[in-house]
Amino acid sequence: MSESRLYNLSAGPAVLPEEVVQKVQANLFNYDKSGVGIMEISHRSAAFDEIISKAKQDLRSLLSIGEDYQILFSTGGATAQFSAVPMNLLRKGTTADFINTGVWSEKAIKEAQKFGEVAVKASSEDDSFNYIPKDIRTSKNSAYLHFTSNNTIYGTQFHKEPEAGGTPLICDASSDFLHKKININKYDLIYAGAQKNIGPSGVSIIILKKKLLSGIPEGLPVLIDYRTLSKTNSMYNTPPTFPIYVVSEVLEWIVKGGGLETMHEKNKEKASLLYDVIDNSSMYLSKVKNEDRSLMNVTFRLATDELEKSFLDASLKKGFVGLKGHRKTGGIRASIYNAFPKKGVSALISFMKEFESSN
Amino acid sequence: MSESRLYNLSAGPAVLPEEVVQKVQANLFNYDKSGVGIMEISHRSAAFDEIISKAKQDLRSLLSIGEDYQILFSTGGATAQFSAVPMNLLRKGTTADFINTGVWSEKAIKEAQKFGEVAVKASSEDDSFNYIPKDIRTSKNSAYLHFTSNNTIYGTQFHKEPEAGGTPLICDASSDFLHKKININKYDLIYAGAQKNIGPSGVSIIILKKKLLSGIPEGLPVLIDYRTLSKTNSMYNTPPTFPIYVVSEVLEWIVKGGGLETMHEKNKEKASLLYDVIDNSSMYLSKVKNEDRSLMNVTFRLATDELEKSFLDASLKKGFVGLKGHRKTGGIRASIYNAFPKKGVSALISFMKEFESSN
Repeated sequence: MSESRLYNLSAGPAVLPEEVVQKVQANLFNYDKSGVGIMEISHRSAAFDEIISKAKQDLRSLLSIGEDYQILFSTGGATAQFSAVPMNLLRKGTTADFINTGVWSEKAIKEAQKFGEVAVKASSEDDSFNYIPKDIRTSKNSAYLHFTSNNTIYGTQFHKEPEAGGTPLICDASSDFLHKKININKYDLIYAGAQKNIGPSGVSIIILKKKLLSGIPEGLPVLIDYRTLSKTNSMYNTPPTFPIYVVSEVLEWIVKGGGLETMHEKNKEKASLLYDVIDNSSMYLSKVKNEDRSLMNVTFRLATDELEKSFLDASLKKGFVGLKGHRKTGGIRASIYNAFPKKGVSALISFMKEFESSN
Repeated sequence: MSESRLYNLSAGPAVLPEEVVQKVQANLFNYDKSGVGIMEISHRSAAFDEIISKAKQDLRSLLSIGEDYQILFSTGGATAQFSAVPMNLLRKGTTADFINTGVWSEKAIKEAQKFGEVAVKASSEDDSFNYIPKDIRTSKNSAYLHFTSNNTIYGTQFHKEPEAGGTPLICDASSDFLHKKININKYDLIYAGAQKNIGPSGVSIIILKKKLLSGIPEGLPVLIDYRTLSKTNSMYNTPPTFPIYVVSEVLEWIVKGGGLETMHEKNKEKASLLYDVIDNSSMYLSKVKNEDRSLMNVTFRLATDELEKSFLDASLKKGFVGLKGHRKTGGIRASIYNAFPKKGVSALISFMKEFESSN
């Protein structure tokens, strides 16, 4: 029972910026003095049109997205895109190339295999996915190269895009989208479920090159066909209005906070503070290759399962939520997305040092 | 600019119960004193598990749903089910039978045609969808009979289920779900987007007979295959946690308000008050066949487009939002779902009488 908010280090749904949560709260009963609550406004209203247009505009400005790209808001998370990408883009006689960096890549691979030829061109499975494979050679007839930019479970991250050698590059950026400025022109399609860095669960953002929209096969389920949302400003049917609204507020928060360069500086600082403690400790151990460590999910181990359990119990008592590692790997995971404050990292570091000295 | 809430008669997203909106608002920053906001809790947390379990339990109790049915929460609205139903259930050599009661049926029909044999067994297109066709004969090899229980655009509603003659009955109940108690055992599958009667947009409820889960073809997109959500308590991937939470609060509001019998009485009263004004007026005209009039969406016309425009302008000034009819039909539409209060209906009636006497 807590009257105030605890430090939420969950992997997702994850902490949102406190200012955003407060603004959403204020608009819940009566949005912008319209007389209608934000959950209850029509998707065909001028107010919602302004919300979705503003969100797209902020996104275009944050990532310098040109008119050759389209921005779509799709219901659900990345998993729907695991199906949609091959169904829309994998043609007979071509191969979908994948980099396998763990569970999320594996799910995307398994799904693509239902719809066409798939090749895993690199994998870090040989070392429990604790690094990012670098040397990629795409298939001769490659339809696209797909990678997962950040891997929540293991705490690895691509710090630069893989070399796709001319083949279209597709990225599942669900867990690090907008953590820094990327060169969008390197990507043909990038998708991200909102619930880590940019909003609540229930909506994804898809940014794709408009030229991908030609040649999509007929007969796809209507909401899987990228042309459906593309032709209707993401409103073929009722979109997830509330999640989209919250995303729009998070985007504004990033813009007002100084944009993605500032965000990246903050994220680097938070992560390096935490990795420093781990590297200078004899209690905490990071298994991830140094150069591939994630700025979003800092994973580490303690010597025994018992010690990890006692660390987690103590952390909960001190007001840290969500530090338990994924059930696949065990261990500890601190998810420090954009919205997680530096003071939370400092508090966590104090706790970790205290725990180390008393155990 | 309004400090208080206006009367929201939108067709959906629609008004939610004021008590629910206030409770959600209170939980936005710090859910149930957990120290974490409701948008930010993990779907793997005990708190969310309790939310989704409680929602299912309330739904089972409200509709007396037996253990032979499964309840799924699916991301998105009814449109996703237009694809999912035939992809899961329409086999070679069988026919999907449809009753065509307008736009939403037509969209479901068009989608099913992509995946198999379809027959439209009855239609009210001959009279602009202003009635519900009654005489249905299903195909010899019918896979199922699909109907749209309430038709928001025209203001028609099935007041009892069509006779399916033994073939599985499937219903899109998006716009009247839980407006009254139905005999769930008549249905093999019923689905409803939340954004009319039971929550915000971004989530659907699917109730289906467990026996439908055998015989689903392999190779479907993972989130379209009903077995995926069925095997994972609707959590194969991150579900739309916030929309599901709001639905859970609406379900509790219905239970605490006396259940579906009370809800039905209230809905009948609200609708009949409004239809009485229309029937006793020389200004307002309902085109819908009396016995098929919807309790949810009351549609009517005025003599000319100019008069309708002036009615809509005046209604906005008096604090009524969303009375404009669908662009397909024009006219006026008052959507008076479960959450729309009787006092709002009374206020609307006063306005309508006033407008009639002064024009």
